[in-house]
Amino acid sequence: MQFVSRNLQHLCKRATRGLYKHNSIYKQLLRRFTVTARLGDFSKWGTTKKNRKVKIQIKQDMSDPKIEDILAPLRNNVKEQGDYVRKLKSDGAPELDIKKAVVELKLRKKLLEEKELSLSETIEFDRARMDDLLKRRFFFDQSFAIYGGISGQFDFGPMGCALKTNVLNTWRSFFILEEQMLEVDCSILTPEPVLQASGHVERFADLMVKDIKSGECFRLDHLIKSHLEKVISDKKTNENVSAECKDIIIKLDGMTKDEMAAVMSKFNIKSPITGNDLTEPIEFNLMFGTQIGPSGLVKGFLRPETAQGIFVNFKRLLAFNQDRLPFAAAQIGNAFRNEISPRSGLLRVREFTMAEIEHFCDPNDKNHPKFENVKDLSVLLYSACNQMDGKSAQHMTLGDAVLNKLIANETLGYFMVGIDPKRLRFRQHMGNEMAHYACDCWDAECLTSYGWIECVGCADRSAYDLTQHTKATGVKLVAEKKLSAPKNLDVCEVVSNKVIIGKTFKKDSKLVQDALAALNESNINALETEINENGETELKLSNGTTVKITKDLIEVKRYQKTVYVEEIIPSVIEPSFGIGRIMYAIFEHNFKARGGDEKRTYFSLPPIVAPLKCSVLPLSGNSEFIPFVKHLSQNLTRVDVSHKIDDSSGSIGRRYARTDEIAIPFGITIDFDTLKTPHTATLRERDSMGQVRINLDEIPNVVRGLSNGKLTWLEVEQKYPKFEQQETTEVQ
Amino acid sequence: MQFVSRNLQHLCKRATRGLYKHNSIYKQLLRRFTVTARLGDFSKWGTTKKNRKVKIQIKQDMSDPKIEDILAPLRNNVKEQGDYVRKLKSDGAPELDIKKAVVELKLRKKLLEEKELSLSETIEFDRARMDDLLKRRFFFDQSFAIYGGISGQFDFGPMGCALKTNVLNTWRSFFILEEQMLEVDCSILTPEPVLQASGHVERFADLMVKDIKSGECFRLDHLIKSHLEKVISDKKTNENVSAECKDIIIKLDGMTKDEMAAVMSKFNIKSPITGNDLTEPIEFNLMFGTQIGPSGLVKGFLRPETAQGIFVNFKRLLAFNQDRLPFAAAQIGNAFRNEISPRSGLLRVREFTMAEIEHFCDPNDKNHPKFENVKDLSVLLYSACNQMDGKSAQHMTLGDAVLNKLIANETLGYFMVGIDPKRLRFRQHMGNEMAHYACDCWDAECLTSYGWIECVGCADRSAYDLTQHTKATGVKLVAEKKLSAPKNLDVCEVVSNKVIIGKTFKKDSKLVQDALAALNESNINALETEINENGETELKLSNGTTVKITKDLIEVKRYQKTVYVEEIIPSVIEPSFGIGRIMYAIFEHNFKARGGDEKRTYFSLPPIVAPLKCSVLPLSGNSEFIPFVKHLSQNLTRVDVSHKIDDSSGSIGRRYARTDEIAIPFGITIDFDTLKTPHTATLRERDSMGQVRINLDEIPNVVRGLSNGKLTWLEVEQKYPKFEQQETTEVQ
Repeated sequence: MQFVSRNLQHLCKRATRGLYKHNSIYKQLLRRFTVTARLGDFSKWGTTKKNRKVKIQIKQDMSDPKIEDILAPLRNNVKEQGDYVRKLKSDGAPELDIKKAVVELKLRKKLLEEKELSLSETIEFDRARMDDLLKRRFFFDQSFAIYGGISGQFDFGPMGCALKTNVLNTWRSFFILEEQMLEVDCSILTPEPVLQASGHVERFADLMVKDIKSGECFRLDHLIKSHLEKVISDKKTNENVSAECKDIIIKLDGMTKDEMAAVMSKFNIKSPITGNDLTEPIEFNLMFGTQIGPSGLVKGFLRPETAQGIFVNFKRLLAFNQDRLPFAAAQIGNAFRNEISPRSGLLRVREFTMAEIEHFCDPNDKNHPKFENVKDLSVLLYSACNQMDGKSAQHMTLGDAVLNKLIANETLGYFMVGIDPKRLRFRQHMGNEMAHYACDCWDAECLTSYGWIECVGCADRSAYDLTQHTKATGVKLVAEKKLSAPKNLDVCEVVSNKVIIGKTFKKDSKLVQDALAALNESNINALETEINENGETELKLSNGTTVKITKDLIEVKRYQKTVYVEEIIPSVIEPSFGIGRIMYAIFEHNFKARGGDEKRTYFSLPPIVAPLKCSVLPLSGNSEFIPFVKHLSQNLTRVDVSHKIDDSSGSIGRRYARTDEIAIPFGITIDFDTLKTPHTATLRERDSMGQVRINLDEIPNVVRGLSNGKLTWLEVEQKYPKFEQQETTEVQ
Repeated sequence: MQFVSRNLQHLCKRATRGLYKHNSIYKQLLRRFTVTARLGDFSKWGTTKKNRKVKIQIKQDMSDPKIEDILAPLRNNVKEQGDYVRKLKSDGAPELDIKKAVVELKLRKKLLEEKELSLSETIEFDRARMDDLLKRRFFFDQSFAIYGGISGQFDFGPMGCALKTNVLNTWRSFFILEEQMLEVDCSILTPEPVLQASGHVERFADLMVKDIKSGECFRLDHLIKSHLEKVISDKKTNENVSAECKDIIIKLDGMTKDEMAAVMSKFNIKSPITGNDLTEPIEFNLMFGTQIGPSGLVKGFLRPETAQGIFVNFKRLLAFNQDRLPFAAAQIGNAFRNEISPRSGLLRVREFTMAEIEHFCDPNDKNHPKFENVKDLSVLLYSACNQMDGKSAQHMTLGDAVLNKLIANETLGYFMVGIDPKRLRFRQHMGNEMAHYACDCWDAECLTSYGWIECVGCADRSAYDLTQHTKATGVKLVAEKKLSAPKNLDVCEVVSNKVIIGKTFKKDSKLVQDALAALNESNINALETEINENGETELKLSNGTTVKITKDLIEVKRYQKTVYVEEIIPSVIEPSFGIGRIMYAIFEHNFKARGGDEKRTYFSLPPIVAPLKCSVLPLSGNSEFIPFVKHLSQNLTRVDVSHKIDDSSGSIGRRYARTDEIAIPFGITIDFDTLKTPHTATLRERDSMGQVRINLDEIPNVVRGLSNGKLTWLEVEQKYPKFEQQETTEVQ
């Protein structure tokens, strides 16, 4: 949970807590990101020597009773505090007390997790070496590097781009085609009113202060926290002040701009770098703003998420689905966030590709029709209950966990693209992360050298977005649901006499009619009583004025109506995939060094996502090989196998190493035996380095089968004669 | 040529005329777009009743001698004027005379083209009905419509999005995979220095004036031109004034901001709508600006083209290609232009997907290795020569035309995605469009109801971009070319005495050394002579100051050096594809009405790009059909055939019509015969409405073959028994 996507947390919070009313948890999560402020924005990325080797600990099944003995007391500590938090909540204790208890709960959880990890299987990972390979073979690298680079922006080179395309295609066929989702491709430039309604204009912001002289920027909550922690740790600080500081730190999340400003001035907080004065707090909106059109009057933003494009098209999508619920819409596209301090390579960037799904469903019926198919799939789940009780994540089947189809699909998808199943878990949002929650919410997290990073966030956005856009536009974003049986409704309505109202109120008559139409039954009863008693009554209009309504203006009608449908605002469940993060996890989980040799590093990407499927290598520059290479290349293209011809000089071993580096899973070598009839060639598999000899004309279809997963290397080895040559002796 | 992409013209001009020095032609082309200014930017799109039916005339082969008799005098007129323009140019006549002659040439060409069209085959096209279908089935529609919409922005719905994906995949496999191009995926947000170097910050702008009261914006050149035309047509205008106006109109393209302002004030030009005063001319840059990072100090823009991302990565790409030329890099992605007045649906928008290829090659060797393969392909070419001589576009083979591989590939690509070959032509840039041109430049244009629209622009950007980025960053963007034979070079260089220079010039010593290193041989000779004669000489530094150089500071060395390589700045040839425009042409060329019935409209998209490949229709709601539908759907998914199950009520005919509307090429009907063994179903083809009966288990592979073009419907009809049922009787 170290690298929670702000986006997803943000949305999740908004949906569950309603219009950011209590966004303390959201902020609490955000606070975890250290902010190193900078003046400009040009920087380098990559790993320094300091942090080059990282040990990653993978939890084992804790079946060893000795390990359990060690962990038992820690587990108890967590459970005790978890129970206490539950009790406080059920007793309706003051919010501050609950917050304090949760802070303690998290501390105990952390101690437990650290101990668990210290007893775990360890993988040593050389991040510097991987970063070097990623840059050297241009999988991706910093954008505009010749201009000094921009932090938080990356360009994908040929291999990174092909991997991304393959991941997106896999995603598309997995979700959109199989689930028959409605894919859309919406505008990035978004006019202000849309993001005003969604809450982003007002709330998608962090508070920031600037160094008055250098202009350096600091995130305010981080700054206050670190300053107060310093005060607390100072031995000269008296107990009262120290307690006050602790109290402020706990309250920080819920503090307003003015309250934070007061803290700054009370504690005389300056720039920690220069000691200069700081500006008043500034709300720094994380969206990139611009103007649309020549007038300069239409303000717009680059979308901070792709989801809004789906919501504003809800009516069209519902119509496309023949007005039926449930349905899912999906979008793959770029979103933009002006992060104060982007870092960690692909993990926190300003421009990123997301793949978002919005499931629109009846709030009272969230079952998934295909759940049956997947209920026996076993995955690693870290439930809220287990988290509160100090237990580990557990393997269980989806059927047992009563989750929906999505998680299963995600899991399958992940395994296909090369995520290590041991380093993937689904973490349920804890109770305190999602107060009034309609349904479960599970994030998919991958373990990397940066810790567990959230790669897919699932958020229940409930009816929030559709409701907001309806309010803003007056366009009803609802679906009709057929009632199980027709219903007789007692209707009570005011029928207004439009002619007289028009004459009486002139330009306000529309407002009067709207106000009358908006009355509910009890309003109408009251109005009727008053008119009957006094001959008139007062009516408040939406513009704030009050008018007199007399008997001749209206008539109250009461009757029965049979209805067959009801209008519902669909609930929305959103799994949101961070493609860059998934790619990063794929890179890390597949980075290998041949026999521990640091110079022979490669990526063991599964064929389905590997940038290129195979290489074609003539043994030497002998011109007799050329027609065979050309012919083979044409035949590979004919069956859609992407490939790279490497006819450069260098031994076969060296060229294999070069293609291993860019993750090419299969290599075909044209040699002197190829010239003889029947023409054959060597086919080599990257991970095992096993080689077989196959008839040249059979090769394209064999590689095709291997690439799309219809054939395994084991099957190929069983069918074709092994080719024995010591590759290792040739390398380098 | 009515809807030339500003982008492509812009780049082409820049590359060919060098740093926008003479961008008159560029502006001339831009002037063709009428600007209807607007205050805000919310609007509707679509076709009004006025322009709903458009007649499109497709040129026939002018083999009929009678037609040629009619056209002959007009052709002569054009040729005469073309010859005159050529003569003026070769005589080095004044620019203004040439301009006037070109205006006359264009007028004559227009008369000829109009006559030709009046003698052509005519297709009647109902644009309003197509727009209605596109909106109704949500192929695409205006973005943020519930908020009033934004002009120039569109959202693609499920079918439009799938078509787009399929077009891009076809493009990718056609260019990137077959040609082994290096695909990249670069940042959209681009820092200012990059676009300063590329010339976009200074020059990618239109002059605009605003109504002082209403804020309404007008493009200045359009405004002046239409005002002066009004003055000319006014009978009260005397001859001198009229001649002056005509002169200004001709000069308008080359006018500076101040000159235009002078014209405005001289002719007292006001807002043509309100009569209000107008502001001074404002340079309106077409890029969307924003700030990157929290400081507000790093200015950035949304990229106006994807090409720059490729150029700034040139060194990485060259390294990836093992330092060898030629190679091509490609990028598919979004670009943004803040058009003053977007219009014509997908044809002029503010946010659009481009697919750009940059071929980096040796400026002295632009041959394409695969040209042999395609030299016999016949395409419709409209050469510059034919345009000047008043001839029509001609069919000829590429071999005859001596063009490169790209055009051939484009053609193939076009036919595959559904462009009507009769409505596709390659138009060569005329001499006056590309003055000092290294190689041919052909645009691919499609004929639509909006006229010939440019869908692919080919530009020779020469070494412009790489040179500019080198200047801006000091990073040499060059390739090394092996010399055919080693060369002995006479080297003459100044070796400076760093110690003494350091002591003498202190902080300027670096500048002094740089200035010395920059001297060429004749400079050095002169310097040496002067020092020998006078004991000292003056040297100008890059900061503008001059220093004295004495004998003790330097030594001149002359020697021979053997070099094996030379550094070259590669030439760049850029085909740039406007994906939205191509999609629009595909829609228009495939919009059909069944038997002329305006209610039975559909899109005859080729299976390879059709959004979904087939539909599955149970004859009725009978529950016995359900397992067959489910089973078939699973098997279709297994072989990657995208499909849609339509189990809604409605006759089969009505449901076929509905799937025709969304361009589904094949339909499978499960009926009562399906229940019998052997289980069979009906397979129907959209365009012919032919139906065959096939074994249920064979269907998925048959549809797969039909979808990827490995099987034709004719072959299917020959192999399987025809299913006879009068579909038409069932419809509606």
